[in-house]
Amino acid sequence: MNIDDIVRGIFQQNIRSVAKGISFVENNPSEADLIVNPIFEKTGNARIIGITGSPGAGKSTLTDKIARIINQKGLSVGVIAIDPSSPFSGGAVLGDRIRMNSLSTVEGIYIRSMATRGMLGGLNRACLDAVDILDAAGFDYILVETVGVGQDEVDIVKVSDLNIVVLVPGMGDDIQALKAGIMEIADIFAVNKSDRNGVDKLLTILNHFKTISEKDTPIFQTVATSGKGVNDLVNFLVNTVNKKDTKSINERRQERLKYRLVKIIQEKSVDLILSKSGRNFDDEINSILSRKKTPYDVANKLMELLCK
Amino acid sequence: MNIDDIVRGIFQQNIRSVAKGISFVENNPSEADLIVNPIFEKTGNARIIGITGSPGAGKSTLTDKIARIINQKGLSVGVIAIDPSSPFSGGAVLGDRIRMNSLSTVEGIYIRSMATRGMLGGLNRACLDAVDILDAAGFDYILVETVGVGQDEVDIVKVSDLNIVVLVPGMGDDIQALKAGIMEIADIFAVNKSDRNGVDKLLTILNHFKTISEKDTPIFQTVATSGKGVNDLVNFLVNTVNKKDTKSINERRQERLKYRLVKIIQEKSVDLILSKSGRNFDDEINSILSRKKTPYDVANKLMELLCK
Repeated sequence: MNIDDIVRGIFQQNIRSVAKGISFVENNPSEADLIVNPIFEKTGNARIIGITGSPGAGKSTLTDKIARIINQKGLSVGVIAIDPSSPFSGGAVLGDRIRMNSLSTVEGIYIRSMATRGMLGGLNRACLDAVDILDAAGFDYILVETVGVGQDEVDIVKVSDLNIVVLVPGMGDDIQALKAGIMEIADIFAVNKSDRNGVDKLLTILNHFKTISEKDTPIFQTVATSGKGVNDLVNFLVNTVNKKDTKSINERRQERLKYRLVKIIQEKSVDLILSKSGRNFDDEINSILSRKKTPYDVANKLMELLCK
Repeated sequence: MNIDDIVRGIFQQNIRSVAKGISFVENNPSEADLIVNPIFEKTGNARIIGITGSPGAGKSTLTDKIARIINQKGLSVGVIAIDPSSPFSGGAVLGDRIRMNSLSTVEGIYIRSMATRGMLGGLNRACLDAVDILDAAGFDYILVETVGVGQDEVDIVKVSDLNIVVLVPGMGDDIQALKAGIMEIADIFAVNKSDRNGVDKLLTILNHFKTISEKDTPIFQTVATSGKGVNDLVNFLVNTVNKKDTKSINERRQERLKYRLVKIIQEKSVDLILSKSGRNFDDEINSILSRKKTPYDVANKLMELLCK
């Protein structure tokens, strides 16, 4: 299947083409534009929702439920789940993934896991390319699910149209170890597993946060496994993002593009330098190891390659 | 205090100068070389240890204990703790930080927290600059502590001389949500809070991992709060990294430099483009928003600025 076929297939909402397109932008960083450029004019219609939260908060199960409920409203949903955890971390997480993948047979829901390979990063660049592909294929909603801990993982949901932060009661304070700053970016708090002990304590903390941050972020209590409370959350979500072309959504889209340009430029710069320097790169590494040159001297020298 | 004074102070092992140097490379990405270049020839002697693990595994308490025990051997220890969690995630994590900071008054141990600001990233670049500063100041050991979840957070410990992965029993499988690939980079497993229920189950999982990965990664059972088992871990650690100039440590240092060059180049490229494009950058964003141009078109155009 060549690029033209993939692009045509994306426009025809062919799921195999969508999958192939995403694989292409993942595996061919320096040629991602071959897919993104021809589809780009068809993008900009999907609502992009970030879902993030602490490990063990039940994000993937909640994402699953949110996708189904949006889908029941006659809207199609693409899900990008970033960076599944190690299978050695235990069965549950992997189990969630497998169960979620069963959704890919439900009409109108497509789920895709993405993970980084290699040192150049590029996961978030590829994720935004994948968002474009789903957008151009006509998905109404695109859910981007990440853990709320790492910098990259938080950055990518920060630039969504709307961001859900998933918390969970009764796990002990030391576990809810969200990245600093993530509470501040929430548009919706989901207190998941809200049938557990400790929900009052968590609600007190959240209300305290709302008071001192002077933000009226809504809090929804959910039990993703049974679906309890998810309907209300989705109704609020859909109503909020349907206030089309509000200033705040446009500002976020500008931020998203700025962020995306930064990611593309970062990846392209290093990619170009690595390909142009060839074996030279290892020689330079050795000149630093022997303290003949500093990393900054070498970086400056390598950057001259960008202009050759 | 000017740059020369900071550099002189670093060589004199003056902790205020070390702190100022680290703040400088954090806050002045485009001028970090002003500090790193003059100190670089004095680097390369410290042992750099990564400590990473699941949220709630007690990493900061364990790092604290490891630092103290190394220090008791007459060696100085610098600790870089990356990205403290949100204070709203509960008191314990913030508490750990505060308690750890009390170590900064202990002779021979210096502790520094670092967190990202801004969209350009640069945390890991600044972290490696800080490692150089501590190294040039003569610290024997540098411990870099991160959570084992995000990509950046895992990348930075991956390039240590030696890497400890901290796990904890009995928290439920869904919580130990380490990033895929992190188990594979461990040189030491620390099963912390090993007085808890579930330690046998966790040891079974780890031994299963060792069997299928065909790696003989040692496992230490620790209770960081009481110090139990940490001595044995530190003895192994010191013995291992003291096998100086082994092939594997040199390879890791090459990897670390390669990674560092990538990070410097990524930050410099974007920094240069943003400063050269000025108001133009926002115009380009708007041309993408209106679908007149694609992100890749604009990225290519902006990259031409690198050569002007």
